[in-house]
Amino acid sequence: MEDVINRRASFPLRNRVLRFLWGAVRIVLFAPSPRPFHAWRAFLLRCFGASLGRDCRIYPKAQVWAPWNLKCDDFVGVADGAIIYNPAPISLATYAIVSQEAYLCGATHDYMKPHFPLVSSQITIGRYAWICARATVQPGVRVGDGAVLGLGAVATKDLDPWKVYAGIPARFVKDRTPIPQMQETGATAP
Amino acid sequence: MEDVINRRASFPLRNRVLRFLWGAVRIVLFAPSPRPFHAWRAFLLRCFGASLGRDCRIYPKAQVWAPWNLKCDDFVGVADGAIIYNPAPISLATYAIVSQEAYLCGATHDYMKPHFPLVSSQITIGRYAWICARATVQPGVRVGDGAVLGLGAVATKDLDPWKVYAGIPARFVKDRTPIPQMQETGATAP
Amino acid sequence: MEDVINRRASFPLRNRVLRFLWGAVRIVLFAPSPRPFHAWRAFLLRCFGASLGRDCRIYPKAQVWAPWNLKCDDFVGVADGAIIYNPAPISLATYAIVSQEAYLCGATHDYMKPHFPLVSSQITIGRYAWICARATVQPGVRVGDGAVLGLGAVATKDLDPWKVYAGIPARFVKDRTPIPQMQETGATAP
Repeated sequence: MEDVINRRASFPLRNRVLRFLWGAVRIVLFAPSPRPFHAWRAFLLRCFGASLGRDCRIYPKAQVWAPWNLKCDDFVGVADGAIIYNPAPISLATYAIVSQEAYLCGATHDYMKPHFPLVSSQITIGRYAWICARATVQPGVRVGDGAVLGLGAVATKDLDPWKVYAGIPARFVKDRTPIPQMQETGATAP
Repeated sequence: MEDVINRRASFPLRNRVLRFLWGAVRIVLFAPSPRPFHAWRAFLLRCFGASLGRDCRIYPKAQVWAPWNLKCDDFVGVADGAIIYNPAPISLATYAIVSQEAYLCGATHDYMKPHFPLVSSQITIGRYAWICARATVQPGVRVGDGAVLGLGAVATKDLDPWKVYAGIPARFVKDRTPIPQMQETGATAP
Repeated sequence: MEDVINRRASFPLRNRVLRFLWGAVRIVLFAPSPRPFHAWRAFLLRCFGASLGRDCRIYPKAQVWAPWNLKCDDFVGVADGAIIYNPAPISLATYAIVSQEAYLCGATHDYMKPHFPLVSSQITIGRYAWICARATVQPGVRVGDGAVLGLGAVATKDLDPWKVYAGIPARFVKDRTPIPQMQETGATAP
């Protein structure tokens, strides 16, 4: 839902120049890299301001709109075809997974206003959470630790930890067994 | 849902030759063009018969199946990844927006008949209407002025003006405030 | 939902080498081939172990994850943008159609287990069945002869023969008229 109606640019010049540079790097150096070259792609993302923990696996055909607004803790996985559209910051906690063609959609337009302004808001994905293939997370949604958003589902509201959701809009389906380490460390939802 | 089962071609030779030429132009001249080159892409579409008003912004990764069946009024926006599949004409009125990966699907197959014939029918998108990211419009659907089809929704029936729809199939969610200029000019749904 | 979280590879080395080779062939020889070159693409798939009957039409932008796990009977159609993700075998019976960007998703992860193991299971698509554009079939689902899975729908359970389904999850919508030849031969759902 990037700016297509607004006749004025939605983003300042500096943002557009950075995105242009990042777009070129993505096409030439990031997307054609062999699948196991996770460290190389993490390096490229960090050059553009991303904060990445240990051994994050961002696959070559994943799309990150603004690396400077991406924060991953350790062991995060983002699959080929996944789209991280982050005019506002998006953060993924340790062991979070974003599967193929999933879509973290960090901005929309306020269609109640005549000028249709862009409205972006932060998305947070908790530890061990799984955004399944082709699922979509709307702007401002917080996905709790261990939550699962099923195949093709659309999360329009916050998802509670260790629960499984499906459908459009996503609704609670069943509980998920919390992973033992999580209980030991007393980690909680964001 | 282009022809894949029918053993005879669904389209006459002239159509297939034109689409082949347009496909080559799209790959070589349209898709690689820089994002701000809207006038260049409008020119290419017009060369293949599209009717486009003032300052339409068709982004480089948008896909138009048959430019000769595309009619846009003024200030229309079609985002990257949007698909306009128009064996029958598709029209977009002034200020209509089609967001990323949205799909205007202008044809289907009559699966009740043994030969599975292609059936295409016209889609019309009203003024100020917004087809959100990953949403789909089925063949023959008329989207009223100012209607909003939410993220990932599928419109199976006509959408009333200035109403917001979501889900599969798309259902009414809430009203949208009509944009003042529209009221002044007395414009109505198609 | 290919392996992105598991720190150990989900697939043995031989599988990964074969997929690497097939990926190279796909990029260089398969995807750029002209649309009518169905026999050429069938030849390439067969070189990698696919079993294909007469006159199958696998379009150039279709994605087959593992040709050695693909079995098509006669006159099968797989459209551009369709994804056949088949760590476990996927079979399509005569006259089955998979439309644009449809997704046969043959594996998931067991999110109830701490190590999040990959779980793949066989998908079977019956004769004359139609998986419409952008629809998804979950692992292990059997789609009966002549069943129709509507635009953008997600099949989470087996689909009965000659019935039409829509929505997420897919629900029964109406009956489809069985194609006469089918009745004559007494063919039944898988």
